[in-house]
Amino acid sequence: MNNFEFKNPTKIIFGKDSIKKLENEIPENAKVLLLYGGGSIKKNGIYDQVQAALENFSVIEFGGIPANPEYSVLLEALEVIKTENITYLLAVGGGSVIDGTKFLAAAALYEGHSPWDILVDKKRTEVGLPFGTVLTLPATGSEMNSGAVITRKETKEKLGMGGPGLFPQFSILDPQVITSIPERQIANGVTDAFMHVLEQYMTYPDGALLQDRFAESILQTLIEVAPRILEDPTDYKAASNFMWSCTMALNGLIQKGVPTDWAIHAIGHELTALFGIDHARTLAIIAPSHYKYNFESKKEKLAQYAERVWNITEGNTDDKAYAAIEKTVDFLHGLGINTKLSEYTNDYEGTAETISKRFTDRGMLGLGEHHDLSPDKVAKIVKMAY
Amino acid sequence: MNNFEFKNPTKIIFGKDSIKKLENEIPENAKVLLLYGGGSIKKNGIYDQVQAALENFSVIEFGGIPANPEYSVLLEALEVIKTENITYLLAVGGGSVIDGTKFLAAAALYEGHSPWDILVDKKRTEVGLPFGTVLTLPATGSEMNSGAVITRKETKEKLGMGGPGLFPQFSILDPQVITSIPERQIANGVTDAFMHVLEQYMTYPDGALLQDRFAESILQTLIEVAPRILEDPTDYKAASNFMWSCTMALNGLIQKGVPTDWAIHAIGHELTALFGIDHARTLAIIAPSHYKYNFESKKEKLAQYAERVWNITEGNTDDKAYAAIEKTVDFLHGLGINTKLSEYTNDYEGTAETISKRFTDRGMLGLGEHHDLSPDKVAKIVKMAY
Repeated sequence: MNNFEFKNPTKIIFGKDSIKKLENEIPENAKVLLLYGGGSIKKNGIYDQVQAALENFSVIEFGGIPANPEYSVLLEALEVIKTENITYLLAVGGGSVIDGTKFLAAAALYEGHSPWDILVDKKRTEVGLPFGTVLTLPATGSEMNSGAVITRKETKEKLGMGGPGLFPQFSILDPQVITSIPERQIANGVTDAFMHVLEQYMTYPDGALLQDRFAESILQTLIEVAPRILEDPTDYKAASNFMWSCTMALNGLIQKGVPTDWAIHAIGHELTALFGIDHARTLAIIAPSHYKYNFESKKEKLAQYAERVWNITEGNTDDKAYAAIEKTVDFLHGLGINTKLSEYTNDYEGTAETISKRFTDRGMLGLGEHHDLSPDKVAKIVKMAY
Repeated sequence: MNNFEFKNPTKIIFGKDSIKKLENEIPENAKVLLLYGGGSIKKNGIYDQVQAALENFSVIEFGGIPANPEYSVLLEALEVIKTENITYLLAVGGGSVIDGTKFLAAAALYEGHSPWDILVDKKRTEVGLPFGTVLTLPATGSEMNSGAVITRKETKEKLGMGGPGLFPQFSILDPQVITSIPERQIANGVTDAFMHVLEQYMTYPDGALLQDRFAESILQTLIEVAPRILEDPTDYKAASNFMWSCTMALNGLIQKGVPTDWAIHAIGHELTALFGIDHARTLAIIAPSHYKYNFESKKEKLAQYAERVWNITEGNTDDKAYAAIEKTVDFLHGLGINTKLSEYTNDYEGTAETISKRFTDRGMLGLGEHHDLSPDKVAKIVKMAY
């Protein structure tokens, strides 16, 4: 097990009818900016619940934060924060709204030239404007971590940011929100959480026995509940396990003390930037090829995953490892998620070279747990995923 | 899954040679009270490492906090805190020293009549004197939770306390400390952590799939590493998994959203108060009888534990559940832990009645996840444990 530091101060308020507890978490006299996305919260009742809970606060709204939170839109919100002297942010939405809110929490207190520098120069945010979240879409884990990914259409870039000042002060998780999520988004959420775990697990055995088992626990739970939620999103037992699994998949816990990969995300982000493919689906496209291309260095862990998560007991290490990749693809297909780039776009020729060149231009040396996936190797993985 | 709230702000600093990081965690200008136990830290080198890290701080020492931290000793430390205007507490020790420090953190700011009221009146500590810990004995999980248990010899009482103001600000976990722990204490630590998990798990199925699997993960890890550490405490891989498992066993995570039992602890505390038996060993005495006495209400979960943790696949639910109790007893015996009261004292006659009467006198209605274990039922469990 590697040395690590772990601190996660976010307060989770989990369960049925918990949105109303909002009012106890925001400081009195706060001037609140309520941030949300495309407006689905106005149709599914969440907006009304939030409004009721905010009755005694001074609130301004900013809706319209798009999926893959767009820099230019966030700059408009930043302007509102400054002109209205906002003191508290409240994100009501999924990962995009929460990530956008994290950017705003950082940018509101940033004193440099342009807030885009926070992303380009990888500036760690030690103190941000305080914020809380009401999660409407389990998937990214953003509700209990301090990271965010921001998109800039103008330059077709998608970059990460973070820092200890960007943990939500609180996050409200009411699994009942799942009843109004479209099937496509639920499938994305399951895929996203599943891939988050794999990025922190599918490397090489490092003697972190407990972290491995926790990771496997989340995978097993997602496999168990995913079909039940897709069948019936009002199944509260399944929904609550799904929601808590998504949070635990990326709240920092399972990555502590272990090597992590994250190459799938790095490559996947480029597919979203280039084609606008849903984030989760880009991971599903890249993962199988990535695991096949890096089979030798990952096969021990793939075989462990095969045995413990998929109950594959037949064959040698190679057989089990390969079978586990197949099982993963079958699982994704079962969610209605395609795993080949050509199933999303006809315009895929040249993508491998484009992504490889982007990585080279950015000075990227090597992705993955061994930092050995150079841009030319990335090109091969992407080509395998056509 | 039940509704829950979860917040754990303790910063964990885990790994080899991490004690020196202490100096970055304590505020400049702090006046520190360094608290420790019987002085073993002066023999195993931990004291020297702590002293080196505290070089630039104003430090006063208070040693001699006994196992089962004793109220009268803690009152002496409280006097030091007040006369010396201490602003920060540093616990260097195991659960007893850390629990004692939590009491002091609460008592230092308590404005009521007598600090014993904090325990008797179950006063929740919202704000305590800030403190950190250097863990020298993995077992209780006190390094990452906000609870403590304090003993008062004078009245043969052992009572709990807690509150959000009693989370350590940081805890340093260097698994190398395990090399100098006597075998008896290691066995106690494994038992303590194992029983902590069982108290939060061995109830009835409640649809909290992820929490169940996390609990099982900790149990499996403890079972895997315990023989390795007892064989060779310098086995760093085993030691690090043992240490992290103990912390995760009682940092609040696995108890969220599920029913919990804690009857074993409630009864076990009385055995420590009456006979001075090591805390962990009291749990080992009570658990098997408790599970047999409450077999009908716990058998489904016992059978799940049998299957997933002990790989017992033969037989029906009753068979598996019973086999799991036997496996648990065998595991404890393998650690060198006796599981019958008569193996610890010849003076056990009447213990059942004494404990039962104490519970009645305190107005206790019912222990366990169903709150139905009345004092007379407790007597039966204790008698089964003779």
